[in-house]
Amino acid sequence: MNTDKYRVKVGKKVKLQDFPTSYNGSLTKEEVYEQLLPANQEKLAQYQEALYAENRRGLIIILQAMDAAGKDGTIEHVFSALNPQGTVVTPFKEPSDEELDHDYLWRAFRALPRRGNIAVFNRSHYEDVLVTRVHNLLPKQQIPEFLVDDQIWNRRFREISNFEQYLTDNGFTIVKFFLHISKEEQKQRLLARIEEEEKNWKFSASDVSERRYWSEYQEAYEDLLAHTSTESCPWYVIPADRKWFSRYLVSEIMVDVFEKIDPQFPELPPEEKAHLERWKEVLENDD
Amino acid sequence: MNTDKYRVKVGKKVKLQDFPTSYNGSLTKEEVYEQLLPANQEKLAQYQEALYAENRRGLIIILQAMDAAGKDGTIEHVFSALNPQGTVVTPFKEPSDEELDHDYLWRAFRALPRRGNIAVFNRSHYEDVLVTRVHNLLPKQQIPEFLVDDQIWNRRFREISNFEQYLTDNGFTIVKFFLHISKEEQKQRLLARIEEEEKNWKFSASDVSERRYWSEYQEAYEDLLAHTSTESCPWYVIPADRKWFSRYLVSEIMVDVFEKIDPQFPELPPEEKAHLERWKEVLENDD
Repeated sequence: MNTDKYRVKVGKKVKLQDFPTSYNGSLTKEEVYEQLLPANQEKLAQYQEALYAENRRGLIIILQAMDAAGKDGTIEHVFSALNPQGTVVTPFKEPSDEELDHDYLWRAFRALPRRGNIAVFNRSHYEDVLVTRVHNLLPKQQIPEFLVDDQIWNRRFREISNFEQYLTDNGFTIVKFFLHISKEEQKQRLLARIEEEEKNWKFSASDVSERRYWSEYQEAYEDLLAHTSTESCPWYVIPADRKWFSRYLVSEIMVDVFEKIDPQFPELPPEEKAHLERWKEVLENDD
Repeated sequence: MNTDKYRVKVGKKVKLQDFPTSYNGSLTKEEVYEQLLPANQEKLAQYQEALYAENRRGLIIILQAMDAAGKDGTIEHVFSALNPQGTVVTPFKEPSDEELDHDYLWRAFRALPRRGNIAVFNRSHYEDVLVTRVHNLLPKQQIPEFLVDDQIWNRRFREISNFEQYLTDNGFTIVKFFLHISKEEQKQRLLARIEEEEKNWKFSASDVSERRYWSEYQEAYEDLLAHTSTESCPWYVIPADRKWFSRYLVSEIMVDVFEKIDPQFPELPPEEKAHLERWKEVLENDD
């Protein structure tokens, strides 16, 4: 599949209404779940093993979305293919007092993967140009007042881009997904959490009241997508109204990303290789 | 399956030669990999979802073994069934300078799971009554000399039991697996790492030289198994010469453990349930 059209072009304005939330192509749910997705998961697991063995590079996957757009499901149904040893999922919830007592990238730094590992950010440092912006939470962040001016969001975009470029330049690949859901589909999913009793525990009244800020969030997303999609750390806007398609598309892009990383199983250095025969003898004579 | 015979009885001496390393029963590899293991993995995934939703209790799985006994494979082939969101695998490698600069349980505390989560310890705090004991590494641990006497291992067993009981009493279940491999099977697996080129990267000469301390390690294991297997935090000795059987047995015991925990999806409190209808109305009238 050509995934290029879901990639946010660098340095251009973004209008989210130009990106589809749904999928109308010829793929079917059945072929995705029975063939295409499992095949990609198999590939991802193989690539991950090489990444882990190579132990030089790392991968950071960022998931952002409006509520109920399918972040948890993507993790469960796509990334469950990965070996849990070497995969760390970090949910970025409402920041704790300790987190608020630091700069806003502090908790992202703490969630970075070891070399050879994969970090999945369920939400991320982008919350600090989203909810922080929409609800004007800067005062809560304890940032000195004289550092707050009308350029703060542009500065943050630059700071985030620098942070991500620094990681790229140190061997960590970053890939960023925005699960793009329509307001109507979100409504249906929230209604299901009310109507189906076994989903009640997922219901949160704040998810409903946050819908009042829908357009403010969409604008904040448009701004960050335009400013922080770079050649090396691109954003992908994933149509998310159909879960099966969004999961498959994420898996396709992940396979592309790994193809470019192309991790290699390490070879023993020649001098160690020369010793292997001797160790073999030692072992064979050992009971 | 009755898994009781693999459980280390409380307060009894342990002779590892009384525990099998192999399996000679009627189960076959095919039925395990095609039916029994996948069925257990399905159960584990369902239990985990309830544990996560409940968000009250947690689970700590400890894996200990001699080299090449199959810890990594157990994680990959049993625990890969778990949702990576909610599962954290921590490898306990040779301690870093920062770790050595603390008490020996410090790094175990840092690896504890959040409520609702599962932590897998690949090796654990038990290394400090194993490699530390066999190789006399206490001086490296910077512990004051006057605290080192011939009772130190018994004290550590008590400290560890107290630590684990504390966790149990706070809602965290601990289950401990010793993957029990024969010296001959280990030899074959290390030889395979030499002879099969794609396994070369896993080979470490120290794995061979450590075999000189085989009986010291076995004795250290016998001592810790006898002293730290308790009613609430038992040790299981898993025959590990056949990978497929050890993986299946671990999955069986995990299902038993979850059956006892019996995590429940949370119900909304009645007062919130009463509001659901109102939120439904709000949503239905919202475009």
